[in-house]
Amino acid sequence: MPAIYLDQAATSFPKPPCVAAAMAAYITHVGANVNRGVYGAAQQAELVTLRLRRRLCELFAFADPTHAVLTPGNTWGLNLVLGGALHPGDHCIVSGMEHNAVMRPLQRLAKQGVTFDRIPCDGEGFLDLSALETLFRPHTKLVVLAHASNVSGTLQDAAAVGRICAAHGVPFCLDAAQTAGHLPLSFQELGLAALSVPAHKGLMGPQGLGALLLAPDFARALAPYVTGGTGSASDSEDQPAYMPDKFEPGTQNLPGIYGWEAALEYLQNLGVEAVRAHDLAISRRFLAGLQTIPGVVLKGPTGPEPRVGVFSLDFPGRDNAEMAWRLETEYGILTRCGLHCAPAAHKTLGTFPRGTVRFSTGWFTTEADIDAALAAIRALTAE
Amino acid sequence: MPAIYLDQAATSFPKPPCVAAAMAAYITHVGANVNRGVYGAAQQAELVTLRLRRRLCELFAFADPTHAVLTPGNTWGLNLVLGGALHPGDHCIVSGMEHNAVMRPLQRLAKQGVTFDRIPCDGEGFLDLSALETLFRPHTKLVVLAHASNVSGTLQDAAAVGRICAAHGVPFCLDAAQTAGHLPLSFQELGLAALSVPAHKGLMGPQGLGALLLAPDFARALAPYVTGGTGSASDSEDQPAYMPDKFEPGTQNLPGIYGWEAALEYLQNLGVEAVRAHDLAISRRFLAGLQTIPGVVLKGPTGPEPRVGVFSLDFPGRDNAEMAWRLETEYGILTRCGLHCAPAAHKTLGTFPRGTVRFSTGWFTTEADIDAALAAIRALTAE
Repeated sequence: MPAIYLDQAATSFPKPPCVAAAMAAYITHVGANVNRGVYGAAQQAELVTLRLRRRLCELFAFADPTHAVLTPGNTWGLNLVLGGALHPGDHCIVSGMEHNAVMRPLQRLAKQGVTFDRIPCDGEGFLDLSALETLFRPHTKLVVLAHASNVSGTLQDAAAVGRICAAHGVPFCLDAAQTAGHLPLSFQELGLAALSVPAHKGLMGPQGLGALLLAPDFARALAPYVTGGTGSASDSEDQPAYMPDKFEPGTQNLPGIYGWEAALEYLQNLGVEAVRAHDLAISRRFLAGLQTIPGVVLKGPTGPEPRVGVFSLDFPGRDNAEMAWRLETEYGILTRCGLHCAPAAHKTLGTFPRGTVRFSTGWFTTEADIDAALAAIRALTAE
Repeated sequence: MPAIYLDQAATSFPKPPCVAAAMAAYITHVGANVNRGVYGAAQQAELVTLRLRRRLCELFAFADPTHAVLTPGNTWGLNLVLGGALHPGDHCIVSGMEHNAVMRPLQRLAKQGVTFDRIPCDGEGFLDLSALETLFRPHTKLVVLAHASNVSGTLQDAAAVGRICAAHGVPFCLDAAQTAGHLPLSFQELGLAALSVPAHKGLMGPQGLGALLLAPDFARALAPYVTGGTGSASDSEDQPAYMPDKFEPGTQNLPGIYGWEAALEYLQNLGVEAVRAHDLAISRRFLAGLQTIPGVVLKGPTGPEPRVGVFSLDFPGRDNAEMAWRLETEYGILTRCGLHCAPAAHKTLGTFPRGTVRFSTGWFTTEADIDAALAAIRALTAE
């Protein structure tokens, strides 16, 4: 039985073939670190790293490669923003749809005297923008928002949030875990101070890597939360103030950098617009099919826009975990059941603590995959 | 001109061939995350991750795989220890030979009210153990030590430090960046509370990964410095208190985990004792050769023990950076010149801010490599 992978929101799979090849080639033939030697291999690694930063700039309409910081992943990047920007007495605004990559650092900071409010959301997970206006306080230092929900695919109007943040003079950090690579995304147009992305989801790269794009003003004000050797300013025990070294301590994940750079080349050749068109076509097909199946309830937005290809299904009267198990073992359909590291989002959607079965799609998801998933859901719910 | 790689202290190269193969196989055939799905591929990834933790336990005589935390690298692991253990008003003891992976986080914490003292070291970089005794204060919460210097290879008597820390009831954290994989190392015998290692140096794995082994008491007391989704306890916005999830937020570096697991199998088949014997033979040959060359001065220990294969050379009357450059371009010998992210160590050795040319060896360094390096040094200093 061939597997049909519909857990793309956890990590995209397959990766473009160039990814494994680039990583293996680095390990086998290059091996050197960046900023740690003057010899040729080190310089080659430096060039690939710079090419990766440039590709991130191109993808996100971002001006300065030195401010495209490489992180060990999206969670680590969000910790650098939250831990570096918020100090005791500060206030932060998030939404009612955040992932624990934001909520757990924030709850940790709350124990040290940081306060926060959640923007209320409706039953499909969409922000109440007028409520956002009322949440700003004199000591509000940061707004953090999941661009699209990893539970329901709900896509927020980040540009509107950006305009409101700008009016209040508060930095706006976007967690683009579920949108980066899936739809065109402009740092400037959204009015961002920070954009955090993982390599391994829509951006088609390997796990263990991410990026944090920082507006110059925000980068200057942000304290480095994790520090260490940078191969630069080595006469000093203070973290360099210049970019990107300020936020890039320690040896870089070079195999990951080579793999991600290759992945982004592949993605840029495709064009993010083409990916978005594919995602929308796949979503329409899945949504239309679901409407014809009694016994399954879609949580979150029912239309193909504004959303991404992440669908939370509830099977009333049945055990969702058992449904996910049977989908895998009887039909080869790989999903993810539970709360998806996002209890707040499930509370907003009314599926806490029961959880849902999440189907998520990507560039390599085909119409045949969708049809097979629909047929399996139909068969299981007809029993 | 074939390259002779003598920058093994920056990152080991080549890697065992199984490393690139395992990483590429993961990317191509597995792809799944751990703790994020119930399907077969996710379970296979879980098993390899557990096998990696078990190998770390075997290598470091450590009991509990759940307390072998995987980190994005040694610098990040050390930040988790320093940032989680030290709070305003606390005191920390380090040596005068630390890397900036320790000193920069510590200097950052010092601005928040943490104080620290450095154990004085002699001109070869060895600790003054009697001075250590005098540095403990009632509020000393942590001792952190570079096991061997990344500048001079000086190997400290960590067991003696461990006994002194135990007598004072203060947790002892060892930074084994330059010793892990190079010599037998027992967590228990050294009296450690924490052991931080990088994957990509003596442990032969890829960059972007490391491990932090934590004694149960210390793990319980240590606050999680970086938090996020763990695929566990997803009903809660607080970081789980159980191990290893408490210190492993976000998606793991699975390609790295596969690569490192393969590397450790290779290393365990060799046996660390065999690596140590090889290192000592290579060191003896290099040290003996250096004694016959006027015009070059070895900084740090002059004997093969107690040290590791990291050698800082100074060329009095010449420009060290130019020497490193000529070694590469005229002889294909790759070294690293400068301060090696360790200004404190260079101050101790009397080579600050001039820096040195560092030669560092590993398992794949041959006698012929050493002879070629010696011949090049001889020729350049004879000019």
